[in-house]
Amino acid sequence: MDCFITHITLQNYKNYNRIDVDFCPGVNAILGLNGMGKTNLLDAIYYTCLGKSYFSSGDRLVLKKGEEFIRIKSKISVGDRKEKFVAKIIPGKKKEISIDDKKVERISDHIGRYPATIVAPNDIQLLLEGSEPRRNFLNHNLIQYDVNYTNQLIKYNRLLKQRNALLKSFAERQVWNEELLNAITEQMEEPAIYIHKKRHELVDELIPLFIDNYALISGERESCVIMYKSSLNDAAFSDIMQESKEKDRVLQRTTAGVHKDDLTFIMNDQLLKPFGSQGQLKSFILSLKLAQYRILKEKSGKTPILLLDDVFDKLDHERVGHLLKILHDQDYGQVFLTDKDEKDIPAVLEQISDDYAIFVIDEGALKYSSQKR
Amino acid sequence: MDCFITHITLQNYKNYNRIDVDFCPGVNAILGLNGMGKTNLLDAIYYTCLGKSYFSSGDRLVLKKGEEFIRIKSKISVGDRKEKFVAKIIPGKKKEISIDDKKVERISDHIGRYPATIVAPNDIQLLLEGSEPRRNFLNHNLIQYDVNYTNQLIKYNRLLKQRNALLKSFAERQVWNEELLNAITEQMEEPAIYIHKKRHELVDELIPLFIDNYALISGERESCVIMYKSSLNDAAFSDIMQESKEKDRVLQRTTAGVHKDDLTFIMNDQLLKPFGSQGQLKSFILSLKLAQYRILKEKSGKTPILLLDDVFDKLDHERVGHLLKILHDQDYGQVFLTDKDEKDIPAVLEQISDDYAIFVIDEGALKYSSQKR
Repeated sequence: MDCFITHITLQNYKNYNRIDVDFCPGVNAILGLNGMGKTNLLDAIYYTCLGKSYFSSGDRLVLKKGEEFIRIKSKISVGDRKEKFVAKIIPGKKKEISIDDKKVERISDHIGRYPATIVAPNDIQLLLEGSEPRRNFLNHNLIQYDVNYTNQLIKYNRLLKQRNALLKSFAERQVWNEELLNAITEQMEEPAIYIHKKRHELVDELIPLFIDNYALISGERESCVIMYKSSLNDAAFSDIMQESKEKDRVLQRTTAGVHKDDLTFIMNDQLLKPFGSQGQLKSFILSLKLAQYRILKEKSGKTPILLLDDVFDKLDHERVGHLLKILHDQDYGQVFLTDKDEKDIPAVLEQISDDYAIFVIDEGALKYSSQKR
Repeated sequence: MDCFITHITLQNYKNYNRIDVDFCPGVNAILGLNGMGKTNLLDAIYYTCLGKSYFSSGDRLVLKKGEEFIRIKSKISVGDRKEKFVAKIIPGKKKEISIDDKKVERISDHIGRYPATIVAPNDIQLLLEGSEPRRNFLNHNLIQYDVNYTNQLIKYNRLLKQRNALLKSFAERQVWNEELLNAITEQMEEPAIYIHKKRHELVDELIPLFIDNYALISGERESCVIMYKSSLNDAAFSDIMQESKEKDRVLQRTTAGVHKDDLTFIMNDQLLKPFGSQGQLKSFILSLKLAQYRILKEKSGKTPILLLDDVFDKLDHERVGHLLKILHDQDYGQVFLTDKDEKDIPAVLEQISDDYAIFVIDEGALKYSSQKR
């Protein structure tokens, strides 16, 4: 089912005072000089899809300086229907989101309504930093089409917090109540097994798509592999928890479980992190995210929105050509991409789609746009 | 005094099996597709100047896969003299560095002989992460021209380690020996005061140069400020240590002192970190590093080598133009820059200098070079 944004109105969103924009269902290129607000417009589209900003850690950072509220109004075409998304945000208060004037009670109910995949420069941190962003990458996909996954994840995290608090209180009070600990641990089993199973399935489906994408983008210059690392791969949850119990007691926290899952990235039989160049890391992220997009599309039954921030950055001309071919061949739905003021952007867009629009942003205002179809 | 590298020979350095390159005293552009080894060649030049890699955390990561040793031979012109730098590195063993066949006993003796400033894409982390990289930025400059600073820094860090160990042992043994603690604290005073003084002077000199550079690069679109934050700015070392003693006892570590110094970065009266766009962050880093270069040049009495990795990345065409003008006007010495395969690189280089050479790298081999003078 097609799913695309036809219009957005922003008030006080980051550097925007107020803008109104009509988008095309194909490729929308957002251009402008450094610091003009290209990424901010992309971020408002992401906000529409996921109910929060991708680039800022809280709504306080989304609010335009000196203003008091933020409003995002989007019109979305979903199959034959037209929907109206409205978010009114006053930082510090509960945010109000509605679809067709009907209030959305919880953000988690909204996620998945308009599936989206985003690629941004800082995603390279996914390859370089601790394991948390890699688990988030897996979660980000699954929560968009599997409501039960979201619920199990919330349940697991709540129990994990309780278990850690219990281990800490045992240490402080110098007691050890094994029954109480087991009672919590047993409740964690069901969500842990579900989370592990779904992540495993996701990675199994991601791998062939990722490998294909990487070969296409790199022109087969490097070969890359992803592996899913989880203590649940080779042992039952109850055995793992039994085995780690003594360690948990000493360290006063839960040392094993799906909250320790990770992905390992390999390039040409070496670990990617210390050996990958900037362009190779970028190729890796693009291949991974575009694979994520395919799966999200299949599982959600909707055509996700693809958001590409500074997408050609760091890629040499060969890889840019390969990427454009992928975007053309693999049938993406609505695409938003940002770029620095490129003279040759129409020629680039022609290679992706016959349906494109170009927006040029200057100081939070839309100065010029051209459209083709 | 002029200082530039005329020749480099690499063996088993990262992806290079063996290469020999003659450089020009002006601008050397290193071009190639993603993953070909542009940054690795830049890194070998950095190794010559600072006795270690900038991009890899240990020599093990510098060694070409499957090889056993690394050799870097460089010829450097320093004023009227020609010097020969040789590094032979077998990871896990002590590295051997010599100048004109005379062994360098300690790496710290080598630092400053060939001053250098480097700008690389990951330097943006300096603006985004914890305070350590910002202290390292200050240290990186000072150790290249102030041997006493290096010695005081080593001394301070050694005493800090001792003091922390003492606080830990007091807590474990449930004793409190104030005299012993004071004895160490008093020894820290001299290095702390020296370090603080030198950092303060450095930041005071950096600020006007930085502000000028930022205005030039951004075309005065944003105004940026740096501030030096140190507990020693407003109070005497002994008072600070006296005040924090109780806190140190509880937390079992030294909570105040120059190891907590930081820099604050402001853009348009807001904190840079949450509000700066990718292009603004890059402009900030470039302005800061080029200011560092000017000071290093003045203090060391030598013309430092300037290493610019992926320098045009993220900057819009206006800012690229402004940067080229700075590089032309401000009289830099030898410059090395990397870029993706750009068709218009000769036109770009013409704007910086009449003296330039272009190197194209393919799979760790130098395929082509052109030179103008």
